[in-house]
Amino acid sequence: MQTLKIIKIGGNIIDNDAALHAFLKDFASLQGPKVLVHGGGKLATKLAQQMNVEVKMTEGRRITDQDTLDIITMVYAGKINKDVVVKLQANGCNAIGFSGADGNSIVSVKRPVKTIDYGFVGDVVHVNTETLNVLLNANVTPVFCAITHDENGQLLNTNADTIASELAIGFSKTFEVELYYCFEKNGVLQDVNDDNSVISQINTKNYQDLIEKKIISDGMLPKLNNCFHAIQKNVKKVCIGKPEMLFDTNANFTTITL
Amino acid sequence: MQTLKIIKIGGNIIDNDAALHAFLKDFASLQGPKVLVHGGGKLATKLAQQMNVEVKMTEGRRITDQDTLDIITMVYAGKINKDVVVKLQANGCNAIGFSGADGNSIVSVKRPVKTIDYGFVGDVVHVNTETLNVLLNANVTPVFCAITHDENGQLLNTNADTIASELAIGFSKTFEVELYYCFEKNGVLQDVNDDNSVISQINTKNYQDLIEKKIISDGMLPKLNNCFHAIQKNVKKVCIGKPEMLFDTNANFTTITL
Repeated sequence: MQTLKIIKIGGNIIDNDAALHAFLKDFASLQGPKVLVHGGGKLATKLAQQMNVEVKMTEGRRITDQDTLDIITMVYAGKINKDVVVKLQANGCNAIGFSGADGNSIVSVKRPVKTIDYGFVGDVVHVNTETLNVLLNANVTPVFCAITHDENGQLLNTNADTIASELAIGFSKTFEVELYYCFEKNGVLQDVNDDNSVISQINTKNYQDLIEKKIISDGMLPKLNNCFHAIQKNVKKVCIGKPEMLFDTNANFTTITL
Repeated sequence: MQTLKIIKIGGNIIDNDAALHAFLKDFASLQGPKVLVHGGGKLATKLAQQMNVEVKMTEGRRITDQDTLDIITMVYAGKINKDVVVKLQANGCNAIGFSGADGNSIVSVKRPVKTIDYGFVGDVVHVNTETLNVLLNANVTPVFCAITHDENGQLLNTNADTIASELAIGFSKTFEVELYYCFEKNGVLQDVNDDNSVISQINTKNYQDLIEKKIISDGMLPKLNNCFHAIQKNVKKVCIGKPEMLFDTNANFTTITL
């Protein structure tokens, strides 16, 4: 099977024009089929402030009400997605922007209300890769924002890390998938203040130990859960680190294994 | 050659939830390959007001500055485009949203400055249908917003009627293209106040006469110029009227011929 690279970038790159520009130039030069997934960054919060839409919170969790969903759709699927696509095209990479509604590619359900109603937040239930495969075979690069849909006309806000892992799992039927989570650190760190303390490999054995020692906590927990979910569902390779891990053979990063 | 329908809808449908819903349901049921092009409606103006971005005018013409381009990108490519796509998916039509940057499908140049600098406004120079043809063959329906790009990383605001006619011309190499401009009237009217006074056919001969008699003026002039441009460049059929012309065999509408 052919190798497919799925690369997720987050707010630290999205919010920095120079970093985004440099990354997209490098990304465009990557050979072989590839998919980009981008997070949202700070622009949605800024727009909400400009529009006087307040951030809704319940029990410390962000709620996606209709106004927030509209803002996310405008910023993620509009401004950021098109900025990424137009810059990739300028670098010779034939990109097409996607939400999960486009090509019916990512189907989700509105998160069931237990103690908290998260609003228009979607949990992924199915990935359709047929149309995406047609495009990858035509040398097109899909660029995903973090929005899905429920097949009944409702857009839903979905975590970008989850979108990347679910796409990786969906594509592993037809590709050997490598999943790269790019963020601001060199990988999962033994000491959060020392970017040279990269844990080069995390597997199901040392993972629990790292959680118990609180070396992995907070925001890293859901990210690593996405990584393990992918690696357990036939994704061949899952890595966390700076974008350099994709381009520099000497870069340090963390690899997730079974 | 197979027939391809290209259908352009404007603000009168976009701004009316019930009308948009009804139209998209009918559109989804149309058999055969099809492309939808949508205008912007009033949402961009509303968002600009909410964000305190003033509409820039020079000599009575709207100027697309950077703030306005950002708003257009958010509203046209984000909110409206994804709303259309998600509703088409709910009606069983496998749609993918496009700007001209996506798939490098519509290349334009920033309008040269003569007496007026229109800002980030693009005049179409080339349509690339290769990727779009791959999708049409896979039973996917492209949905275009009115944004193009210059291949150098710049998005550009482009008239939706022009996008529809340029796509129609581009596709006429591989399809027998029918181009339908949907708007709020039954067609081009002999008497602007009488919706039953439809001029059923306009050709290059009676066109000049209708202009001289001021029966065709103002906003209808650029629309008809787009129609004639298309019909002169191998588009098989060009029609103007209400969306009913697509679904109701008894509907009145205007056909443009050579």
